[in-house]
Amino acid sequence: HADDVWSAAVDLLDQTLLPETLSRLICETPGQLHDAIRRLVVRGAPAIGIAAAYGVTLTRVDSRADAAAVRSRYLETIDYLATSRPTAVNLFWALDRMKAVVQSVEDAELEMLPNRLADEAIRIHEDDRAMCRSIGINGAPLLQGCQNVLTHCNAGGLATSTLGTALAPIYHLHENGTTLHVYADETRPLLQGARLTAWELSQAGIPVTVCTDSMAGGLMKAGNVDAVIVGADRIAANGDAANKIGTYPLAILAHYHHIPFYVAAPTNTFDMALASGDLIPIEQRDPAEVTQPGGPSGRTTVPASAKVTNPAFDVTPAELITAIITERGVIQTPNQANVAEVLNA
Amino acid sequence: HADDVWSAAVDLLDQTLLPETLSRLICETPGQLHDAIRRLVVRGAPAIGIAAAYGVTLTRVDSRADAAAVRSRYLETIDYLATSRPTAVNLFWALDRMKAVVQSVEDAELEMLPNRLADEAIRIHEDDRAMCRSIGINGAPLLQGCQNVLTHCNAGGLATSTLGTALAPIYHLHENGTTLHVYADETRPLLQGARLTAWELSQAGIPVTVCTDSMAGGLMKAGNVDAVIVGADRIAANGDAANKIGTYPLAILAHYHHIPFYVAAPTNTFDMALASGDLIPIEQRDPAEVTQPGGPSGRTTVPASAKVTNPAFDVTPAELITAIITERGVIQTPNQANVAEVLNA
Repeated sequence: HADDVWSAAVDLLDQTLLPETLSRLICETPGQLHDAIRRLVVRGAPAIGIAAAYGVTLTRVDSRADAAAVRSRYLETIDYLATSRPTAVNLFWALDRMKAVVQSVEDAELEMLPNRLADEAIRIHEDDRAMCRSIGINGAPLLQGCQNVLTHCNAGGLATSTLGTALAPIYHLHENGTTLHVYADETRPLLQGARLTAWELSQAGIPVTVCTDSMAGGLMKAGNVDAVIVGADRIAANGDAANKIGTYPLAILAHYHHIPFYVAAPTNTFDMALASGDLIPIEQRDPAEVTQPGGPSGRTTVPASAKVTNPAFDVTPAELITAIITERGVIQTPNQANVAEVLNA
Repeated sequence: HADDVWSAAVDLLDQTLLPETLSRLICETPGQLHDAIRRLVVRGAPAIGIAAAYGVTLTRVDSRADAAAVRSRYLETIDYLATSRPTAVNLFWALDRMKAVVQSVEDAELEMLPNRLADEAIRIHEDDRAMCRSIGINGAPLLQGCQNVLTHCNAGGLATSTLGTALAPIYHLHENGTTLHVYADETRPLLQGARLTAWELSQAGIPVTVCTDSMAGGLMKAGNVDAVIVGADRIAANGDAANKIGTYPLAILAHYHHIPFYVAAPTNTFDMALASGDLIPIEQRDPAEVTQPGGPSGRTTVPASAKVTNPAFDVTPAELITAIITERGVIQTPNQANVAEVLNA
């Protein structure tokens, strides 16, 4: 009603419709934003964090409410948005930053809270831009001698603010005159590699070849892959990294073929409270993502009599990771000590 | 015209329409049968061989033709059907048997040739039934202690005459009171695991769970896979085995997790003229199979600006194969000597 205070809306590119359709989704409530994260309209660990931060600013607050009620209204939104997806820790990291703003503002300055929250969301967004840029700079030397690089899912601009994480070194090299050829695993079930990575690399003028997830091994055997680089949704203190389902087998294939396997992620992807990757919660998603490979309006290719499993992530143990590329530097041979050294630097 | 002699038609279950639609395709000419093989209406190395053998009987022969012309007409059909798909050697094996019939019949008995060819096609079909049965018996002890078995693509009844190759030991155990749970890799791009393996196992009352190809590694890590069993399209003299794309990475994953990896195939799958798997020709198929995961009427999920690779098979080196199960016995630790020992027994 008339006493409500609304912030601006959050305007998202609807990634579920790419590459065929460029369409924007306007979220005007935390509920709409929660749904957008859950449905993967916006996805990618850093982008989820940024979107959720903006989502907090959509909180509807009664202007007659007292200080305690206003604060609790924002904290409710924060807790609610934290339930949108379980695995990417950047979501909780961003919401914790927003929570700190809610908790630190003085009662007397409470009318400033909406602006302070908007400023914090913008800072989270800007911080991510800077982190992507630094990951690109730090990772570029590792890929410098490569001709063909394989990636999985989408850890590019669409998953972050700008340059991405796994794709940042590739974009950085391209901007500086060295253009690699990228193999993009299609990344079943939701095809982020085929739909998003292939699209954004093509837009940037970087040659890309899409393969099914099952083809990566054969490409490596044929000598067509010089390095693998992927993002991460959560990294434990020992360097074990959760990322899109299919990453763990890729790491084993790279190991078998003596190909370097890199994870690129900002330091806010680390969850230092978890000693190992076994403790990372793994999201199970709707079986329909598997049974309808062409999307909800397409063919159902699994008989109703069969069961379906659909974990969205797997965990790659640190010993299969050649290096983790962060904005603070490169963690070679990831383990607890080497992770701590770069994170505490 | 009226002087043409027609054999019976070849009646095929159209596997491209499974699991949603049970529909039969009637082939009345070698051209229709060639197209059915090429489009995967019938697929699976043994089934392709059987279908092609029946396809030879569809040859249209002018009853006024002389012996040389009749023979050359059949040989033309044989050569033509051999161009339908390049990798499965069972196709050439079956056509060679048909060719031997054409070449061995006496001129004086030439009118018997259609019947002799029909008899030979039926014998090829019956031989396959017996081979599947023996593969089931020979392979069952290897899976006896397992609870969960993972398979890739479809090497079941739909790929052969009856029990399949990879699925034969599973069916044999089921018939004898031991029912395993099967994980079926969906098998992109054409989803034979999701569409066909899940369907036929369900029909038989064997519990099956479909996963994307990218999930097999995580299932193994979690201890959910006791053995992997797959079919083959061509096996070289040293035991290297070509099979559906995605088989080679599965073999590496099984090796990494210390899980046995079995190949089940009749001895006519061996191509003893090839010293190693590097010499096996690999079919490249239409990129549309990758770009339209829900089929030709579904969504296009790869932007037109990206390239696509679509090899239909990969080659698993013998050192990654625990054993090859044939109708003549089990080849443990496949290599040139061990293959020769069982094949020459």
